[in-house]
This record gives sequence, structure tokens and C-alpha cells, in this order.
Amino acid sequence: MSLDAVLSRIDANLPDATERLFELLRIPSISTDPDYKDACDTAADWLVADLQSLGVTASKRQTPGHPMVVGHFDGPKGSDAPHLLFYGHYDVQPVDPLDLWDRDPFDPQIEETANGPVIRARGSSDDKGQLMTFIEACRAWIAVNGTLPCAITFFFEGEEESGSPSLVPFLEASRDELRADVALICDTGLFDSRAPAIVTRLRGLLGEELTITGASKDLHSGMFGGPAINPIRVLSRIIAGLHDDTGRVTVPHFYDGVPEVAADIMAQWQGLGFDHQSFLGDVGLSTPAGEQDRTPLEMIWSRPTCEVNGISGGYTGKGFKTVLPSQASAKISFRLVGTQDPLAIRENFRALVRSQLPPDCTVTFSGHGASAASTMATDHPAFEAARTALSEEWPDPAAYVGAGGSIPVAGHFKGILGMDAMLIGFGRDDDQIHSPNEKYDMESFHKGIRSWARILDALA
Amino acid sequence: MSLDAVLSRIDANLPDATERLFELLRIPSISTDPDYKDACDTAADWLVADLQSLGVTASKRQTPGHPMVVGHFDGPKGSDAPHLLFYGHYDVQPVDPLDLWDRDPFDPQIEETANGPVIRARGSSDDKGQLMTFIEACRAWIAVNGTLPCAITFFFEGEEESGSPSLVPFLEASRDELRADVALICDTGLFDSRAPAIVTRLRGLLGEELTITGASKDLHSGMFGGPAINPIRVLSRIIAGLHDDTGRVTVPHFYDGVPEVAADIMAQWQGLGFDHQSFLGDVGLSTPAGEQDRTPLEMIWSRPTCEVNGISGGYTGKGFKTVLPSQASAKISFRLVGTQDPLAIRENFRALVRSQLPPDCTVTFSGHGASAASTMATDHPAFEAARTALSEEWPDPAAYVGAGGSIPVAGHFKGILGMDAMLIGFGRDDDQIHSPNEKYDMESFHKGIRSWARILDALA
Repeated sequence: MSLDAVLSRIDANLPDATERLFELLRIPSISTDPDYKDACDTAADWLVADLQSLGVTASKRQTPGHPMVVGHFDGPKGSDAPHLLFYGHYDVQPVDPLDLWDRDPFDPQIEETANGPVIRARGSSDDKGQLMTFIEACRAWIAVNGTLPCAITFFFEGEEESGSPSLVPFLEASRDELRADVALICDTGLFDSRAPAIVTRLRGLLGEELTITGASKDLHSGMFGGPAINPIRVLSRIIAGLHDDTGRVTVPHFYDGVPEVAADIMAQWQGLGFDHQSFLGDVGLSTPAGEQDRTPLEMIWSRPTCEVNGISGGYTGKGFKTVLPSQASAKISFRLVGTQDPLAIRENFRALVRSQLPPDCTVTFSGHGASAASTMATDHPAFEAARTALSEEWPDPAAYVGAGGSIPVAGHFKGILGMDAMLIGFGRDDDQIHSPNEKYDMESFHKGIRSWARILDALA
Repeated sequence: MSLDAVLSRIDANLPDATERLFELLRIPSISTDPDYKDACDTAADWLVADLQSLGVTASKRQTPGHPMVVGHFDGPKGSDAPHLLFYGHYDVQPVDPLDLWDRDPFDPQIEETANGPVIRARGSSDDKGQLMTFIEACRAWIAVNGTLPCAITFFFEGEEESGSPSLVPFLEASRDELRADVALICDTGLFDSRAPAIVTRLRGLLGEELTITGASKDLHSGMFGGPAINPIRVLSRIIAGLHDDTGRVTVPHFYDGVPEVAADIMAQWQGLGFDHQSFLGDVGLSTPAGEQDRTPLEMIWSRPTCEVNGISGGYTGKGFKTVLPSQASAKISFRLVGTQDPLAIRENFRALVRSQLPPDCTVTFSGHGASAASTMATDHPAFEAARTALSEEWPDPAAYVGAGGSIPVAGHFKGILGMDAMLIGFGRDDDQIHSPNEKYDMESFHKGIRSWARILDALA
């Protein structure tokens, strides 16, 4: 099997690969919004058909939510190459505020920028563009060699952006089918534009939505303002009290299980030359918020957080309305590290909120996902093989890094399927994932495909 | 001129009067929302036509916002009866949340309730139903007597629910045309179902909208959560800090100009038998919030407040989105009493907010109205004449009361036109003005019309 021929074919077929990605990007598979349920189903069908076109035995699997896509490709007979499971997600974030997009989020286009051409569309980076790097690497490999160098199980979900409610039950019910030697997850980024990265730690995620209710209906703030409790004020007080003056989260026992980073790992991180001034400067900020005694890189890779992702209450339209509202709501998420227990934190958070309710106020909660942090076992030989292969494709060597985001599937692969996961991706900090005008650099797409071809070769 | 014949005609023509009110209620004249600009114009046209049908010289007057309606009717020649100016507003509050309405807010209907028939529609009480009580009293008077007992200027605005931005310039430009001996304002309520009221003090209103901006765009709470400032958290802290633990507002100098209620007035209020348990209980509350050392009646009639009328930021749709938003906004209003200076409070509030901004955050403000409180000169003889006339119509005598709401026009009539205002209205506490399912009791409408007929007779 010839790696060079595979890489050449990838280069020659980049326009076709791009057009296939565009087809997938045109499907508005927003998983969190029930109005887009059919689109999620269409995206799953598209992936099944694309895998089948490669000779993969692929099918859609129904869940209580959006479907999973599972495909199998047998490797060369008699090979001792590892059996790989590749994971990506076909669902995307909502697109609001739509008026901040420069174009239709679901009409992808290549735009020339100062940093080269980019693919502009919702999901171009997170995660459709990323997952297609792997499929395109496999397509080129099969075209050149008639097969793949390893047995590969393809596994795509459609609920990653909405808390993956069906993932654990599906993994538990599919242990035998999905178990492999090592998992590959493509949903992370480069360290910088020259150096690729393998993520070895991911933060967990706990989502909570709470609604505080005061009066039984909206009131007139003139007629009732004073004696009637205002749930926006109650909610604001509760949110304001979730952090102390040093930036630490006040939920009781929140820091149980939060480890200090080992000295050798901290030294390695310091050697990466992370430029927090430019990291913040790129989004119009200059001063690190958060825990006062931590560096920004520590905050993102090794410290837990509590953020408010949304708040609403009363009249929020144009103009003014002197309403004293009956309800106020917030969506709050916690990023978790180490062995923080998401379910314990959920209970402690809810108890803290309840303890702060004034008379006449009630609160309801709904949970949106609860996943612990993951730390990868980098002593598995696949890690070093992949790191070497990545280093050959990119100008600078690949680094082992942390990531601030939450990819709970890595923890589930370990806990339920008993396999380690390598998180390798080609996104960039300025991809604007989850924001208007999301993009994926053509270089990320192209070199991402080439990277996977090299990794498949190295792992085989 | 015969009062009895006028009252009889009012009774006989109640169905026709109700149908005229329904016509006006069907016009969705929401002044705060630019989408309803045409409807506001239509409501003004309707009033002009209705006044003209009475023989009133009426016309629509354009403003930078919604039009004013002005009409004149000359009284009997040679009479020494006072020249009256009657004020009402034809605009209404927004109707959201629409799903809490039991019917179309702009399709009025009479509903039978345990307390008798009510007219259900947005604006039925605030203020279309109220202003029509006066027009219908005039209609009956003219039908019976061929004229009115006094010269009357009719003056209706269409921006009362959105801060009345055009009112002061219009009054200043129309001093000569609008000046009268005394103003009548119908935008308040009964004291209870048996006792009418003349409002002698009104709270002022200052509206402020603020938007706090952190990063230049929405961010991913995993990638940036920690080092990036969260404007929802900043806004929540600011709102939480606007009151101290005793319920007092913390804006510097806020209580400058807040008088204690005179002992004789306080004694009179205590004699009214205000039942705050039922006042709060009717809206599902039991414990007075607000300043800890004040009674609910004091809080509403004589104490200033600061309330949050709306808050928004980040993702507020269905499901969850782990966004770290760029912006968060709130609409905040202050009810003012005594000689509190709204413009000084605006500056002090804005300075307080600015002083609490962390690095990298900016704030923008927009003002929505700023009016001082009003206290009426009850020694004007018209007050006692009107109180006697009202007492003859209703089971219990009329009371001089305070009101928590803000009707800045009363202060402007005094300050710009040099005339006192009598605030007489027939709304009830359970009318749900500014809320879903607003209603106006048929008894309020019917006896309201009769009350005005008696007052016209008494003032003449």
C-alpha cells in the first residue's frame, strides 16, 4: 500500500471532496431545535449513502432523539493492525443571531481571506468539515488500494450539540458492535496554524436550565412595584452569587475532585508559548476574567467554570413595557475537570438556588446533559504513532494539549466500551464555531484529510 | 338641563356604547412596537370621526411619533361653568405572551364571570374603555340637551404606553389651544368595587435600557469560558446590587426628595381598610417584598421603586446552546415620588452602572421617558364637587387616594398648561392591565359613563 499515491489522490480530488462537504453543509441539522428534526434525519441519510458509496456496510439507527449512523469496513485479512472506531457528529449549533451572519449559514461558499481560502457555513468546522476529513482520507485510500489498512467502525451521532441524550443508552446497547482497539475523535483543533495537536484532556459539561416564578401572572410595575417580588431580581441575585470576588464558583463542594496540574505537564504547557493576549485580543478582549490566580491556559484546560449561556424574563421586545414579570429563566452550564462529579454538582447547585429563594418564589429545573471530564492514557502506543504521523504533515511537531470544550463521548468510550480515544482535529481558534460566520480553513480540510491518511498508515 | 334624562339615556343606550367601544378595541394600537404604527393611526382616525359625530370640532395632529387627537366643543353661551380638558390615551400595551391569552386580544367579547359581565380585550381597561366612558357621557348629554354643560377640550394621545415622547413638545406648542380651567384624566381605578376614587398623587416614571458588551462576538463557552468576561454575569451583578438587603435602592442620592407621608394623610389611608393579603393573594403572593419597614400601601402610593422589566442575553430558545454571549440587556424602570428628580436619578444610575463595569466591558444606555411624581391641589373646588357627584353614583363615598402608576401627563398639565388635574377612573385591581386577558367590568363601563354625567352636572 502506497501512502504517497493516497496523498496525491487526495490533492487531485480536493474539489470533489469540497463539493461533497458542501452537500452535507446544506442540510440544516440543528439538533437542539425540534423544528429541524427532519433535517437531522436527512443528514444521517446522507452519511449512510456516502459511506455505502465507499463500500462501507452502513445504516441509520433510530434513537428516541436523532438517529445514529454506524458503518463497518473490514480491514485486510490476517492483518494485526488495530481495529479503529472513528467518531464525529453531523448535528450543528443554532444559527441565531441570524442578522450577524454575512450570508445564509446553510449555503456554503469558499471565501478568500487574508489567511487563505475558507469554507463559510454553519457546521463547516464543528463538526461536518472535520468528520469529512476522515471519510475523504478513507475514500482516497480505498480508491488507490482497494481497501483500508485497518478495520474501521464509523460512528456518527446527531445530538452532540444538544447534550447527547441518546448516546449512553446507545453505547450500552451496542457494546459488542462498537468495541474496537482505539477510538479516533475528530472534533478538536490545531494548537496553532503550524502545529497540530492531540487532545489529552477534555472538560466535562453540566447544563442546567432554571425558571423562577413569583406572581401567578405578569403584573403592572406601577400597581404592584414594591410589594410584589420580581423574579428577574431574584434570578440576578442568584447568578451574581454563583461566583465570589476572586472568580471562584460558590456551589458547595464544587472544587471536590479538581486536581492541580502536575509540574511536568505544566512545564510542557508553558513551553507551548500560548499567547493569551492575542487569544483574547482576537475577540476584542484584553484582561483575563475568571479565577484571579490562574493563567488563561490553565483556566481553559484545567479549571472548572460556571457560565450563564442565556437569560430571559419580562419584556424583551422593542421599546419599553412596565411589566413586573411572573417568571425569569436562565441557562447555566458548568465545565468540569478532574474527577468532579456532575450529578453531585447538579444537586448542590439546585440546593444552593433553592436555599436563596425568597418567600413566594418557586423554581423549576431541567437538566441538559451531565458528563465528567476525560483524561486520556497517552502511554497507549497509538498516541505516539499518531503524533509522529501528524508531525510529518504539518510545519511544526504535534503537541499533547488540553481543551476547554466538552466531548463527553471520549469518556463514554472509555467507560462503556473500554477503549482509549485519540482526539485529533484541525479547527482553528478563529473558526467561530457556535457563533455567526463559522468557517473552516481550506488548509484545515485539505491537510486534515492528508493527516488522517498518514495516521491510518502509521497505525497499520 | 336634566341629569335624570341623561342617566336614563345612558342606561338605554349601553348596548350601542359597548359596540362603539368594541370597534375601538379591535384596532391593535400597540404604540411601543413600530410594526403597529398604522394601527395607532387608525385608532386616532376612529376617535376623530367619533368626536365629529357628536358635533365636536376634532382633528388628528401629527407628531414625530403617533398622532394626537384634539377636539373642541363650546359650552352654553354666557355660562360661568369651567372649561374642562379631558385626557385619555388610545394606545395599548403589547400583548405578549400571547399564548397566555384565552382569546384574541383584539377580538373583544363580553364574558360572564362570578363578578358579573366583563369586556375582555387588550385596552378594555387601559385606556380605551375608560376614555370611552367620558365620550359616551358627552354623547348622552348632547342627545338629551343638544349641548354640553361646559366647554370641553378633548385631548387623546397615542404614546402613553411608550413613554409619551411627543407629549411635552406638543403641549408646549399648543399652550393656547389646550389651556382650560381644570383637566380630567380617566386612566385610574376605583378604590374597591363599592368606592370610587380621585387620585391625588401619582408616582413618576424613569425608564432606562442598558446593554452591556464584552467580547466582540458570541463565543464558545468551552473554548473561552474562564478567561473571557460574561456580560450576563456582569449585568446580573449590577442588577443584584441595585437594592440593599433591606430593599432600599442603592443608586446614590436616590432618596433625595422622598418625603414622609403627613400624619393626617397616613391616618386617612389607614382608615381605607386596604387588605394587602388579598391584594397580593389575588396574584399568587403572600409576603410583601420591597422596603422592609413600609406597609404595602405605602410602598405603592408613597415610596419609590426600582424594577427590572425585562432582561435578555445569550441563547434563549428551546434546548441548550453553550454560548458565551457578547451582550446582555435589561430594561429597568424607577417609580418616583415627592420631588425626586428623574434626570438626576438617570445620571446617578448610569454613573453607578459605569463604576461597576469590569475591564473589557462597555455599556450603552437609552432612556425611555423621565417624569416626576405629581401631587394634586385638592383644595380646588372642583375636587369636592366631583367627589360628591361620584359618591352619589356608587354605594360607598369616593376617596382621595394615591396610585402606584405613573401618569406623567398630570404633571405636564400643571407645569406647562398651569391647570390642576382630577384623576378619576373606574378600573379594578383585577383588570390585568399590561397582562394577558385584560378586562373591564361592564359595571365599570356603565357606572363610569353615569359618573361622568353626574360630574359634568356638578362642575357646571
